[in-house]
Formats: sequence, structure tokens, C-alpha cells
Amino acid sequence: MQGSRFRKSTDAYRQGILEGDRIILSQAITLMESAHEEDQRAARELLESLIKHTGQSLRIGITGPPGVGKSTFIEAFGKHLTEQRIPIAVLTIDPSSNRSQGSILGDKTRMHDLSKDPLAYIRPSASGNVLGGVAQKTRESMLLCEAAGYKIILIETVGVGQSETAIKDMIDFFLLLALPGAGDELQGIKKGIMEAADAIVVTKADGDNVARATLALSEFKHALHLLSSSDTSWTPRALAASSVSGKGLDEIWLMIQEFERGSKLSGRFEETRKRQRVQWMNEYFQQLLAQDIEQANLVEQKLNHERAVMENRVTPFSAAKAILQHYHEEIRKRKS
Amino acid sequence: MQGSRFRKSTDAYRQGILEGDRIILSQAITLMESAHEEDQRAARELLESLIKHTGQSLRIGITGPPGVGKSTFIEAFGKHLTEQRIPIAVLTIDPSSNRSQGSILGDKTRMHDLSKDPLAYIRPSASGNVLGGVAQKTRESMLLCEAAGYKIILIETVGVGQSETAIKDMIDFFLLLALPGAGDELQGIKKGIMEAADAIVVTKADGDNVARATLALSEFKHALHLLSSSDTSWTPRALAASSVSGKGLDEIWLMIQEFERGSKLSGRFEETRKRQRVQWMNEYFQQLLAQDIEQANLVEQKLNHERAVMENRVTPFSAAKAILQHYHEEIRKRKS
Repeated sequence: MQGSRFRKSTDAYRQGILEGDRIILSQAITLMESAHEEDQRAARELLESLIKHTGQSLRIGITGPPGVGKSTFIEAFGKHLTEQRIPIAVLTIDPSSNRSQGSILGDKTRMHDLSKDPLAYIRPSASGNVLGGVAQKTRESMLLCEAAGYKIILIETVGVGQSETAIKDMIDFFLLLALPGAGDELQGIKKGIMEAADAIVVTKADGDNVARATLALSEFKHALHLLSSSDTSWTPRALAASSVSGKGLDEIWLMIQEFERGSKLSGRFEETRKRQRVQWMNEYFQQLLAQDIEQANLVEQKLNHERAVMENRVTPFSAAKAILQHYHEEIRKRKS
Repeated sequence: MQGSRFRKSTDAYRQGILEGDRIILSQAITLMESAHEEDQRAARELLESLIKHTGQSLRIGITGPPGVGKSTFIEAFGKHLTEQRIPIAVLTIDPSSNRSQGSILGDKTRMHDLSKDPLAYIRPSASGNVLGGVAQKTRESMLLCEAAGYKIILIETVGVGQSETAIKDMIDFFLLLALPGAGDELQGIKKGIMEAADAIVVTKADGDNVARATLALSEFKHALHLLSSSDTSWTPRALAASSVSGKGLDEIWLMIQEFERGSKLSGRFEETRKRQRVQWMNEYFQQLLAQDIEQANLVEQKLNHERAVMENRVTPFSAAKAILQHYHEEIRKRKS
């Protein structure tokens, strides 16, 4: 891994990324994931300098229950795009992953063809314990990929629950993959994820599965119909696809383009992006505030108050108030 | 409702509560729920002055699916306790309630006999929009009731989901009520609540229901067995009871007493209480901090940064950092 000793200048990273140099892009993402303070500062400066070159891609989130064939679908769909000369980046958001346990190799192996494609950039998930959390690092990797000229960013979520919520705050279009044959409940697809999906794709619609895929498709169409609300401009759709035969891939791509055109025309696209950016700002603020309090050297005072609260000598409220006062004092002591 | 014009002195509230004056207790709880700043200050001072007199009760949380007969059970179980000269307080935690829509009348009517019992104090839920949230107000009402000498506090949760989590952080014993005849899944009882329960009571075990109650009982015993972990000192139990015939009420009371004795002997009781108090302190701290930031006069700066972020002129990160700096400046400007 790249340490601070090997750090390039911000300008070298910047130039390399803007020229689409994949090795420098990878190094910059690694820099961003570093816990080293100097690396963090350099990564911030780099992101700041590239901000004008971000936001030009379409961000697509892809999720689905285990066994649905996410990697296979991404490989097939990704190839479908690169064949049309569209440069794509594939990012993975996986809160449980741990880089040292070999997920780089894992991801590259999983998407064998795509990883050799000069128009595709595949970056495995950040390790589960990076500063600021995996979602934030995926978000920042996405911005760097955009600056490097990738026009479609596919963000795959691994694992269930929280990662789907996190992804929703950074993407434009949310694709839910589902298995043929069984309805949403049997597949363990949560209602919240169904509601968040812009489209459901029934995978493996080939060979013996065709009848089951058709059945699942009509079930999902029905479910989407029940969930649909009248106040949105986009009505979620259900489609079937095969990563083996390529069936449905073009239909999916046309649908996504239709979504992009429509939401850009109505202004919804930019509206969502603006809302997401403000939300990121608020998240960063909470994170910086928590760090600031941690660094404010309140450990001893906090322990004293905790003890007093434990022994029921003071109310939890007045102890909390006293800790806030200590924090204020610490801020006043610092140089402005 | 009592406004700040009618506020008594802290000492008057304090004396009244310590003497067990129910009217003054009610007025003090209303004071605590007031959004008026002066009322809040007075309520804080009162709680502080009573802290030494709190914590002497056993705090029992009661929940269950709709239609399970929570109020009827609390009325029957409450009478069972007051007949033994045990003073009880009944509090309700209901995030959706709205005082003005008549929940005072509602609660009193629901527990008709108990509300006339001189040994029982029934206080309906705080309105859903009190400062600091309903859970916090229930917690503080509980402390005032303890200072007024109530030995058993029954906290009923209305509604599903979050209120059960909130209640778990303020009670010693968690009782889950269930209907006869159907298992936990059919009743919509979430796994998390099953796991949190110290005991499950199958209600309405009378008349034609006896066979169905017995069946449900064995199902719940099985479910608890599957959920049980070896690292806790208390093994959750399942019992059946009838609020009509009174069957099972004494068994429940004996079980709760056994729990109390055991957990006090092992030290677990006080350990849990200490952990809860520290948790309250951290919650209050977060709340005070959020208020402090809101009052720090950052609205204009925050809007400017939001605009810059929306227009993609700066990164969400650097905007967040700038807002934190404005906050620091505001603190330095204040008199210490």
C-alpha cells in the first residue's frame, strides 16, 4: 500500500486523474482512504481542486439478494456499455469487507472480462474501518472517477440493510436485481428497498428459467404497481435480463437513458444532486464536530462526570451541560 | 395547562412531591414538559434537587401488539399490587400521541378502576412534540414519580418499533404481552422485541381461550428457548394470565420479585442502571450540543455554504469545515 512517503504532489495527482491515468487514479483513491493525517490533508486538497470536474457522470446503484448474480450482471451490463465506447467505473460498497483479506483479488476475479477492458475501471470496496466510513469513501472515489472521465459509475452494494440506505444518498438511479421464480418476500427483499428502486431486473432469464422469470416479472410488476405513488415523475419498472444471452441489457440501458433525459428535463436530476450534496455537507459537519469534541481533551472531565452520574450524585442532564461547558472552554483556549 | 405565570417555587414543588402530593406531582410533570425556557430551567433545578430521592422503584416496561389488552392488563396487575399496599405509577410512552386530542381522558377512561385508586398514579403520555422527545420526558416523569414515593413504575409503550427501543433504556424489567392462539410471527412481534423481553405473558387466558392460550404459551416457550443465550443471568420466561379472572397475576409478580432479588444480588441491577444513566448523559449531551449549534447564530453562514455546495463551487467537506469554524468563532465571542 502507498504510504505518505510515496505521496505525490496534489498537482501530479490532479494532472494524472484529469488525463485519465488509471494508476494515478488508484493511487489517489488509496491516498483518500489512508488514515494518515498528512495523506488526509492532501486528499482533501486534491478533491477540492477537482470539484469542477465532478458530477458529469450518471451514477447507478445496483443491489439485490445474495445469489442474484450481481457481479455477473455488472460484468455483462458493463461490457454492453463499453462496447458502445462508454467509459465506466465500478465501485463496491461493502461495510463488512476487509482489504487485507483479499477483496482486491476477489473483485478482479469476479469480473474477469470487464477487469481487462481498457474502458472499465474496477475498484474494490474500501476496508470496513476507514476514517469516515465506507459510504463516504465510496462517494469520494466516485468523484475522483468522474474527474478521470468515467461517464457511468456503477455502485454495487454488498450486504443488506444500511448500505442500501447509504447508497441511495449518492446515486441517480437505483437498480434492484431479483431472482426468477420467487416474489420479494421469499427473496428477503425489504419493502424499503422495493420502494427505493427505480427499476427491478429479474436476472437469469435464460434456459430453463424463462418461465419462472416471466412469473417473477409479473409479480414484481404487480408489487411495484401497489407501491407506486402519484407524486413522482418516474414510475419504477420491472424487466427481465440474462447476463448469459445478453437479453434485456439493451432494454435496461434504454430505460436508464430515458430516466436521465426525463429527470434532467424536469429539473429533478439536479434537484436530487443538490439535496445529496447538502446532505453530505451535514454528514461531514457531524463527523468533524464529533472529531473536534474527541480532540478537545475532555477525557478526564468526561470520566469524572460519568462517575458522578453512575453514582447518582448529579443528574445526567447537568453532567452533560458541564461537559459542553468544558468543550467551550477548550475551544476558547485554542488559537483562533 | 399550567403556564409560567403559575409556576411555584422549586422548593414548593420539591416539598409537595416528597410528601407524595399528586396534584403537585402532576404540575411538576407539566412544568417539565413545558417548552417555555423559564419553565425548563425551573424543571431542571427541581430534578437536580430531587436526584437523591430517585431510583428506589422497580421500573417495568410493558408492550405488546394492538388488541392484546395492555390497558386491561395494567389495570388488573396494578390493582393486584395496590391491594398489597404497593404504590404504583403508570406512565405511557406514545410518540404519536397528542395531548390536545384527548389522551388524558382516554387514559383515565381506559383504566377506570385504577385511576380511582389512591395508591395508583396514572399519567398519560407527553405530547409528541415536547422538547427533547417523548422518551426523555417519560424518563423524567419516572424520576419525579420515584421521588413522590411510588415503588413500582409501569411504563406502557403504545405504537411499534422505536418506542420499544427507547423504553429498554429506562427500565429494569421488560414484559411483552401476546395474544393467545397465534405465534410471534403472526402477531407481528419483531424478533428484536422478543429478544429484549424478560418475560412474555399470554393474555386473555380465560373461558374459551384457555386451550389457545396454552398452545401459544408452549410456542413462546419454544421461541424463547431458541433465542436464549447462556451469558445472561436471567432466563426469560413465558406465562399465561387473565385480566378477568386474575389468574397468573400473582405468578407474574412473584417472577418479577425473583428477578429483582437475583439481579440485585449479582450486581446486574445496579450495573444496568449505571449504564442507563451514562447513556442518558450522552443523549443529553448530543441534544445540548445540537441546541447550542442552533443558537450560535450560524443561519446566514450556513445558508451561504449550502448555496456554494448546491452550486458545486466547494466540496461538502470544506463547507462543513467552514461551518465548524464559524461555530468556534461564535463560542469565542460569547462571554465565558
